[in-house]
Amino acid sequence: MQNLFEILDQLYEEAVEIRRYLHQYPELSFEEVETPKYIANYHKQLGHDVRTGVGGRGVVAKLTGAKPGPTIALRADFDALPIQEQTDVPFKSKNDGVMHACGHDAHTATLLILAKALNQLQDELSGTVVFIHQHAEEYQPGGAIAMIEDGCLNGVDVIFGTHVWATGPVGSVGYRSGPVMAAADRFHLTVKGKGGHGAQPHLTKDAVVIGSQVVTNLQQIVSRRVDPLASAVVSVGNFVAQNAFNVIADTVQIDGTVRTFKESVRTKVEQEMKRIVEGTCLASDADYDFNFVRGYPAVHNTEKETNYVAELAKTIPGVDDVYEIEPQMGGEDFAYYLEHVKGTFFFTGAQHPDWEETYPHHHPKFDIDERCMLHASKVLGKAVLNYK
Amino acid sequence: MQNLFEILDQLYEEAVEIRRYLHQYPELSFEEVETPKYIANYHKQLGHDVRTGVGGRGVVAKLTGAKPGPTIALRADFDALPIQEQTDVPFKSKNDGVMHACGHDAHTATLLILAKALNQLQDELSGTVVFIHQHAEEYQPGGAIAMIEDGCLNGVDVIFGTHVWATGPVGSVGYRSGPVMAAADRFHLTVKGKGGHGAQPHLTKDAVVIGSQVVTNLQQIVSRRVDPLASAVVSVGNFVAQNAFNVIADTVQIDGTVRTFKESVRTKVEQEMKRIVEGTCLASDADYDFNFVRGYPAVHNTEKETNYVAELAKTIPGVDDVYEIEPQMGGEDFAYYLEHVKGTFFFTGAQHPDWEETYPHHHPKFDIDERCMLHASKVLGKAVLNYK
Amino acid sequence: MQNLFEILDQLYEEAVEIRRYLHQYPELSFEEVETPKYIANYHKQLGHDVRTGVGGRGVVAKLTGAKPGPTIALRADFDALPIQEQTDVPFKSKNDGVMHACGHDAHTATLLILAKALNQLQDELSGTVVFIHQHAEEYQPGGAIAMIEDGCLNGVDVIFGTHVWATGPVGSVGYRSGPVMAAADRFHLTVKGKGGHGAQPHLTKDAVVIGSQVVTNLQQIVSRRVDPLASAVVSVGNFVAQNAFNVIADTVQIDGTVRTFKESVRTKVEQEMKRIVEGTCLASDADYDFNFVRGYPAVHNTEKETNYVAELAKTIPGVDDVYEIEPQMGGEDFAYYLEHVKGTFFFTGAQHPDWEETYPHHHPKFDIDERCMLHASKVLGKAVLNYK
Amino acid sequence: MQNLFEILDQLYEEAVEIRRYLHQYPELSFEEVETPKYIANYHKQLGHDVRTGVGGRGVVAKLTGAKPGPTIALRADFDALPIQEQTDVPFKSKNDGVMHACGHDAHTATLLILAKALNQLQDELSGTVVFIHQHAEEYQPGGAIAMIEDGCLNGVDVIFGTHVWATGPVGSVGYRSGPVMAAADRFHLTVKGKGGHGAQPHLTKDAVVIGSQVVTNLQQIVSRRVDPLASAVVSVGNFVAQNAFNVIADTVQIDGTVRTFKESVRTKVEQEMKRIVEGTCLASDADYDFNFVRGYPAVHNTEKETNYVAELAKTIPGVDDVYEIEPQMGGEDFAYYLEHVKGTFFFTGAQHPDWEETYPHHHPKFDIDERCMLHASKVLGKAVLNYK
Repeated sequence: MQNLFEILDQLYEEAVEIRRYLHQYPELSFEEVETPKYIANYHKQLGHDVRTGVGGRGVVAKLTGAKPGPTIALRADFDALPIQEQTDVPFKSKNDGVMHACGHDAHTATLLILAKALNQLQDELSGTVVFIHQHAEEYQPGGAIAMIEDGCLNGVDVIFGTHVWATGPVGSVGYRSGPVMAAADRFHLTVKGKGGHGAQPHLTKDAVVIGSQVVTNLQQIVSRRVDPLASAVVSVGNFVAQNAFNVIADTVQIDGTVRTFKESVRTKVEQEMKRIVEGTCLASDADYDFNFVRGYPAVHNTEKETNYVAELAKTIPGVDDVYEIEPQMGGEDFAYYLEHVKGTFFFTGAQHPDWEETYPHHHPKFDIDERCMLHASKVLGKAVLNYK
Repeated sequence: MQNLFEILDQLYEEAVEIRRYLHQYPELSFEEVETPKYIANYHKQLGHDVRTGVGGRGVVAKLTGAKPGPTIALRADFDALPIQEQTDVPFKSKNDGVMHACGHDAHTATLLILAKALNQLQDELSGTVVFIHQHAEEYQPGGAIAMIEDGCLNGVDVIFGTHVWATGPVGSVGYRSGPVMAAADRFHLTVKGKGGHGAQPHLTKDAVVIGSQVVTNLQQIVSRRVDPLASAVVSVGNFVAQNAFNVIADTVQIDGTVRTFKESVRTKVEQEMKRIVEGTCLASDADYDFNFVRGYPAVHNTEKETNYVAELAKTIPGVDDVYEIEPQMGGEDFAYYLEHVKGTFFFTGAQHPDWEETYPHHHPKFDIDERCMLHASKVLGKAVLNYK
Repeated sequence: MQNLFEILDQLYEEAVEIRRYLHQYPELSFEEVETPKYIANYHKQLGHDVRTGVGGRGVVAKLTGAKPGPTIALRADFDALPIQEQTDVPFKSKNDGVMHACGHDAHTATLLILAKALNQLQDELSGTVVFIHQHAEEYQPGGAIAMIEDGCLNGVDVIFGTHVWATGPVGSVGYRSGPVMAAADRFHLTVKGKGGHGAQPHLTKDAVVIGSQVVTNLQQIVSRRVDPLASAVVSVGNFVAQNAFNVIADTVQIDGTVRTFKESVRTKVEQEMKRIVEGTCLASDADYDFNFVRGYPAVHNTEKETNYVAELAKTIPGVDDVYEIEPQMGGEDFAYYLEHVKGTFFFTGAQHPDWEETYPHHHPKFDIDERCMLHASKVLGKAVLNYK
Repeated sequence: MQNLFEILDQLYEEAVEIRRYLHQYPELSFEEVETPKYIANYHKQLGHDVRTGVGGRGVVAKLTGAKPGPTIALRADFDALPIQEQTDVPFKSKNDGVMHACGHDAHTATLLILAKALNQLQDELSGTVVFIHQHAEEYQPGGAIAMIEDGCLNGVDVIFGTHVWATGPVGSVGYRSGPVMAAADRFHLTVKGKGGHGAQPHLTKDAVVIGSQVVTNLQQIVSRRVDPLASAVVSVGNFVAQNAFNVIADTVQIDGTVRTFKESVRTKVEQEMKRIVEGTCLASDADYDFNFVRGYPAVHNTEKETNYVAELAKTIPGVDDVYEIEPQMGGEDFAYYLEHVKGTFFFTGAQHPDWEETYPHHHPKFDIDERCMLHASKVLGKAVLNYK
């Protein structure tokens, strides 16, 4: 294994170059053109079996080892965000209003140099490695579903993936078995009452009062209808009935978010929301439009693969903190892969030790400590070589 | 008219005797036997045309004047209450657990001596006087409906009635045109949730939470759904979910009262209650039983007759305060007569000036200043003689 | 009296001219310049005692009768509204964005020709007539307070005023003793919670939830804390927490209106609102700003003067429907005069019988049947001449 | 180790005898007299160092091994419940109204025969074993606090304990690191409003309405104020305002339960409950009494000791299912020991494979498959012998 680590150490400079190049030419979800070309080209030069346009814009490359063994997939996403970069780095985005503000450039660079390293170790490699370069993670429905439908998981036994994590110190690796990232859904409710003069409530159906009841009643979902041992959040963020002070509202717009980790809880929350909205509006003889929009499901890591990665991460040079993280409330379409095969999704610390301030993911000043790529590639590479 | 007043003054002693006699032998609603016999006998001795068993236990007597004129009904109720008298009067109730605690004994005595007085004035009497002695005012559905169905209002042009009023000073007369006594309805709701252990709310339908929402939502009926210029009350008096602290309630019993003055408001309140109960239970997937039990409707005095009585009341010796009263929230089945003919129902002050404490109607220590009978008989008598 | 009516009939053409002239040159509240000049000039030409700049921009004129008698005030307001007229009348407003959309032009014309008529009847006039031409009725704090402080009611025994009423048929007069127009107050509440991410409610104080509770709890004021026999309205019109769906609201803005008829109820509502806001925010550890802004108080007509006007209105030629109106929920600063002297404020029907559609007061297409001025001047004039 | 298991197999008959004997003579919490005598006697006959009356009625026995090593405590509780036994077993309770309906008889028998077995293995035993026989687990404040204060944990390095578990199949062992049993607290709230007649809400402070708001507002604690990744339950079980339907409630009694796993969450829930009750009552100007009564804290197993026991449990003959259990909502005063020393509390399956129906703990027909004692004694015994 010393060998793998040595190769990756030598390739680190290239990883930085690739990442910085990609950083300058970010592309939006479902609009990626140059990035998949770049990726495909890189694998082709390594002699890998490459398929492009997978599920639309994805790239899948394969490296078959000299010895028989399992088929292991590694996934990196490569799309960017509609954000105007505000950093001062020399490799700042050259695409106006688009930015790699979530680290997908680093994910891609990590996977590419790992592909080069494993290619060099082909003789000792048992089984097959499938490099899944996924488009469109940032924008629903995401690229994963289509790539899976297009066969990217065919024959795959296990999948590994990581996210660089700007709020975890470089050198740390966070793992968690079971639900690790939440299902993040949205809902949109328009209560349709009947407006009128503030002095004549009896001629109206006061949408503000009805909306207030809905908000109050929604609190019961988490407090009464969800298993206390499960986690769920139902939050109304937007509540707007803009009127003169003396006019009773005709309609109210209510929008919010739901986070859950279990599919059964997610379904229960959706059902109960519908029930509450229906009953509450009925109680006031009001109409409504209600939409519950499902985002990505929760990411569920399998126990064995998670422990496997956690244990080997402790042996990686430069990795000095391997910890069990709390479940994260954000969403990831890596979830879909894990609905088909076992595997784990972990977090690779990317916070520079000298930073005075850390900007979160999706921030115009987001940045990473690039050494995270070295740590990530070593964890993933060792996970490939040691897997049985 | 001096004549009428003089006659009534002379008959006052008898009025007191009659009232005290009846007070000793009170009979419950729908169980009156001796009282109607007594009344019928009194009228028969005066030679009046008497019909008994009207609408069950009512008595109707007629006196026809020497001159042609309108047919005027006077109504007095004669039932008592299931209350154990706690006064020290020498004419205390001899029927255990039954008491004239609302003054119906005085109503009856007033009407009887007025009948005697008008009998003496038959020569100057224009038209016909119908004496309606009604049973069962205290207990729904009351005696009025049945007596009306049995013809007691046939040919009647106008009706007058009064209630002695222990909380108004003797010598006062309260009148009001329009709604003067409220419709008093009841409701009974059983919320049927699903009980369970306090630590496992998600396996239950928490009836206490649902019941609490019903109570909260009911507040909107008066605040939002009833015309602010109309009056309505919706009160929950009883809310019982008796359980151990760590057991989630299976059911909740909720009982309350509704008061309104307009039939349209009453119907609206009933409809809105049903809607709120249905919607609120639906929002929690709970079952329920809901009963809205109508009591007597509101008493609506006609304007002309009310002003007529108010004006003449000012001329009665001993009556020194004729005032417009606020609408009263209590119920009276006099309401039914006024659904058929015009007329008015007024309040005759019966509070003794020397009382240190006044006991309200239906109290075991209830009593009246008997002079109220004199005032009431004079107002009613003059109302008969002067009516055109 | 026939004489008064005849004179007014002859002056009707002039009334129309005056009204149409004023209609073309409307002036906003507290910005009136030409209108008071015009009014003052008119009275001066009649030889009346005129005071200008009363309470700012008001005009007070006096006519003293040949015989001794009471001092009777008549009030007409003369300000206009910030509305762009959309009618097609030839005398359409020439002041851009300003319109006599409430009939104050007609009030002024009515009072001026009545002044001319009474001037001609000076010999038979007993007592003094005070013509109060008030500025700024449409905009709080209104002109009445300042004019009263400036002495316009000095020596006045009684006051009469009317409002032309576009939603009542011409020929009708509406009266009501007691509270006839509501106190119209406003409230403004900013709930100051603590915002945050929709997935982390425990780190926030969710202003939408708190605001919803405030709205729900406010329903209790009318349902539980105000005498059911009194009228009150508490309506929230504006409820705004504009946020992304996944952001928990930091603040909520809530604005609404309160209508009451009794000062005690008004004060109670204000107190209870403060209590509810304080308690509800305390329950969630949130801050808030709450302002209860009092508008005009309720207009309380005195009984005797109201009946006086109602009776004489029935004798006015062309007036064929004198009816008791329901209390009106709108506000009027005529209320302040009645806090000092007795009097009544009535409504003179101004709806043209041929209109297909009636536009309400304050509408850009508002108009009146000008004959209402004739009816109003006759009622007011007769009220002056006959008052004892 | 084979040796330990063989000895325990031989002692199994005696374990059954002891358990059945204790089962016939159950004693209530804080009233135990014969049971501790029996236990102390047993240990004395083994020559153990015995202390009685520890913390009141507890018994602590010590066995010191031939070799140096850690001090390991094993705890068994020995009190019974105020339940009338309804089983048909020949060793049915002879103490009327008292029953070992939770398996503490088995806990005690398990620990006694294990003491005898370890005594025989004294030569190979490293360190000291402290047998903690605890009184009064079923009734707060429980016996653990007092025994700890009385020194039962002095010098102890680690503690192990188990609960026989009638709803888990015999042969299973449930473990869980971290919080495994909830803190179970109670609350009692009396809302003190002001009663009155149902038709006059404005003269009252309606306790039913206030109580309903409290219930509704309490839902927010779990939905908004507790970390969604933590668990908490707030349930109102009892809500009583018993009144005639037409009487507005003066007071309401509200009682409920709170379950949490983290002390910080527990404290937060208590604080937020106080805040909500205070604010909600303030909003209605009502008084209240509120008591939050803390029960046992949550049982927190330490990770290393839990994994240690879980791993060795897999090696016990007859134990065929070692699984991670969900946190349990019930309380246990074993929690107090773990506040002082590391250790773990696990669950030993006791459900007989042939039962048609399983009766839960605290049920009058509760019973166990006695082989659970053999499994429990082997797990605990091996945990003692192997601990380092």
